[in-house]
Amino acid sequence: MTAPLHEAHPTGGGRALPNTQQGMRRRNLAKVMHTVSAEGPLSRAAVASRIGLTRAAVSTLVDELIRSGLLEELGPERPGRVGRPGSALAVSGRGPAGIGAEVGVDHLAVCAVDLRGEVRSRAVRHGANRGRDPEPVIEELGELVRQVVAEAEREGLWPAGLAVAVPGLVARDARTVVRAPNLHWRDRDLGDLLPVDFPLTVGNEANFGALAELWLGEGTPRDFLHVSAEIGIGAAVVVDGGLLRGTHGFAGELGHVPVQPDGPGCPCGGRGCLEQYAGEEAVLRAAGLEPGEDRVGLLAGRAAEGDEDVRRALRDAGTALGIALTGAVNLLDPQSVVLGGALAGLAPWLLPSLEAELDRRTAGPACPVSVSRLGPEGPLLGAAHSVVRGVLDDPVAVAERA
Amino acid sequence: MTAPLHEAHPTGGGRALPNTQQGMRRRNLAKVMHTVSAEGPLSRAAVASRIGLTRAAVSTLVDELIRSGLLEELGPERPGRVGRPGSALAVSGRGPAGIGAEVGVDHLAVCAVDLRGEVRSRAVRHGANRGRDPEPVIEELGELVRQVVAEAEREGLWPAGLAVAVPGLVARDARTVVRAPNLHWRDRDLGDLLPVDFPLTVGNEANFGALAELWLGEGTPRDFLHVSAEIGIGAAVVVDGGLLRGTHGFAGELGHVPVQPDGPGCPCGGRGCLEQYAGEEAVLRAAGLEPGEDRVGLLAGRAAEGDEDVRRALRDAGTALGIALTGAVNLLDPQSVVLGGALAGLAPWLLPSLEAELDRRTAGPACPVSVSRLGPEGPLLGAAHSVVRGVLDDPVAVAERA
Repeated sequence: MTAPLHEAHPTGGGRALPNTQQGMRRRNLAKVMHTVSAEGPLSRAAVASRIGLTRAAVSTLVDELIRSGLLEELGPERPGRVGRPGSALAVSGRGPAGIGAEVGVDHLAVCAVDLRGEVRSRAVRHGANRGRDPEPVIEELGELVRQVVAEAEREGLWPAGLAVAVPGLVARDARTVVRAPNLHWRDRDLGDLLPVDFPLTVGNEANFGALAELWLGEGTPRDFLHVSAEIGIGAAVVVDGGLLRGTHGFAGELGHVPVQPDGPGCPCGGRGCLEQYAGEEAVLRAAGLEPGEDRVGLLAGRAAEGDEDVRRALRDAGTALGIALTGAVNLLDPQSVVLGGALAGLAPWLLPSLEAELDRRTAGPACPVSVSRLGPEGPLLGAAHSVVRGVLDDPVAVAERA
Repeated sequence: MTAPLHEAHPTGGGRALPNTQQGMRRRNLAKVMHTVSAEGPLSRAAVASRIGLTRAAVSTLVDELIRSGLLEELGPERPGRVGRPGSALAVSGRGPAGIGAEVGVDHLAVCAVDLRGEVRSRAVRHGANRGRDPEPVIEELGELVRQVVAEAEREGLWPAGLAVAVPGLVARDARTVVRAPNLHWRDRDLGDLLPVDFPLTVGNEANFGALAELWLGEGTPRDFLHVSAEIGIGAAVVVDGGLLRGTHGFAGELGHVPVQPDGPGCPCGGRGCLEQYAGEEAVLRAAGLEPGEDRVGLLAGRAAEGDEDVRRALRDAGTALGIALTGAVNLLDPQSVVLGGALAGLAPWLLPSLEAELDRRTAGPACPVSVSRLGPEGPLLGAAHSVVRGVLDDPVAVAERA
């Protein structure tokens, strides 16, 4: 009864398990895994008190998870404490690993993350992918995946699944790239192009970036709007700790929110979309610069040097972001807005005008804006961790596959 | 162990029950109630097959629900069918009822709805509430509530809870009206003003209107954006069959999404908000009419007569709605947009320009727009039904209170 791992991940929430004894057991196994993962090492008694089950019930669950290789005992706790010494439990550093991959406009990256959340293996290849056909790009990505998996296997890990982050709209089948304008890809099933013998998920990079922020950020709330940029502007809406995906999987298209309804035409068919004011290329154009490979580095460098044209272009982009975010904040009432991806690196020059615009316009209470510490690493880490979370969410399914 | 009914309702989702035997039993009782409510009358065998439990398990649950007066047996099914004749089960038309109330700018309304969803008692009082203090308004509302409850009690019903719809922002405590600009109310705890001996919930009228559409509309999807208007413009976001409430309970403020960032100032502090183009008063002003009591009737009447000024004003309002909805559709990717409340009555003149704008601008697939058949009845029915749903979601809690 192997549940398809890849279905649960892009939502960030657990799979719905049936309301039966068997379903209850699986949910409780997941609770034990999540508790030890978040707070471990912990004794059995501590786990029992955290999740509100008896010590005996927890021991049965823990024994099963140890047999499956998902938990391990660290040996007796230090003496001097009252009662029989318990053995602390920790999530295993061997066994299943999450493989994350990223198709960027200018790079490919793959990493393996173990159940403890540590990156154990990683590979990156730089080079422009814009306008290249999906086949050779995904073939290159496949080589990196094999390389990272081989290295992980040498450390006693095995791939529980692969999640691929792409800069575009991905259908709810979590395989088909419907439109990736900055790669010029349309309606391609990446599952066909990337044959692997473990579950494969494809997702939007902004969504994976937001999940990384949710799982790895410090003090990230459970309701926030994550705004990122590579060439386009992407956003993701996290509600109550889960991703809002939308009917077609396309939620979060902040880049095409109208900012000036009579503004310049946009390739999407609209006019005056946010991307026409705050997308990387629009900002470069406004600053009188040529788009090259390290666009963010160029803008940040010039702004830091005090280039007034670049600073003004970033200030105007911040204003446009503030207008679009006002609408989003009014609609969603999030706990915060987090700037991630390329925007994180430009935050010092975007934030003042963005925050001024947002505060001035928002009807409700002020919505704080923060800057991601993960920056451009977010999507790749989010992808790998989505596989890891899938293992924690239903350890039985994975153990049966091992 | 009486669970607070009023916490669960405004979300439209069920309360989270603990993952224990007792929690499992309560969830299964809820499944039986929901199944019979949605598809009844049904035999025990039919219920068992619908929810995937054994006939014996379902019989135990059904017996408990019959003893509590929440289900009733309609007597043996017609003969001529194979096997022992089963007795069809139906939701009881006696017992707990949901009381809904609405504070409108120009009226007060209260109704009682039984577990079958039928309105069993109703009272309305017309009169302008704008600028009146909350005390006398809520005192009048209390009189209507007592009148409706007394009438319901004569029919063998008892109030399981009261939900009050107000045209304003309501805090997540589901009691405090933080801001109701069109009544001129601020930071008032209606729970203090309306003493009743059953659970009280206060919620935003647009939210209750959206829930009514979800529960009572025909073919309403589980992901949609509901847009309504009285004097302000309200909206509510329904995701996967539940209301998106937001951090402060303020999600859905479509009326203050910027439509023309340099447009006229709005009392909210912003500029060019949707309400400045598509709110009832803005439309009346644009059409050169004076705001009176039956504003929608006036606009609809004149538009139907062919008044070109009114038609143009409504066309422009539709365009502004289309711009604001483009942003919302890009962010949320809903299955549809539903126009409710006062907007439903004006749809013939708003829709063409609204749909043209939305189709032209939306980056993703076209988002269909439909018109609510509930119209201005939505918020009141949604409020009453939210109490009824609370009973179906956790029948044990209610039975213990009876």
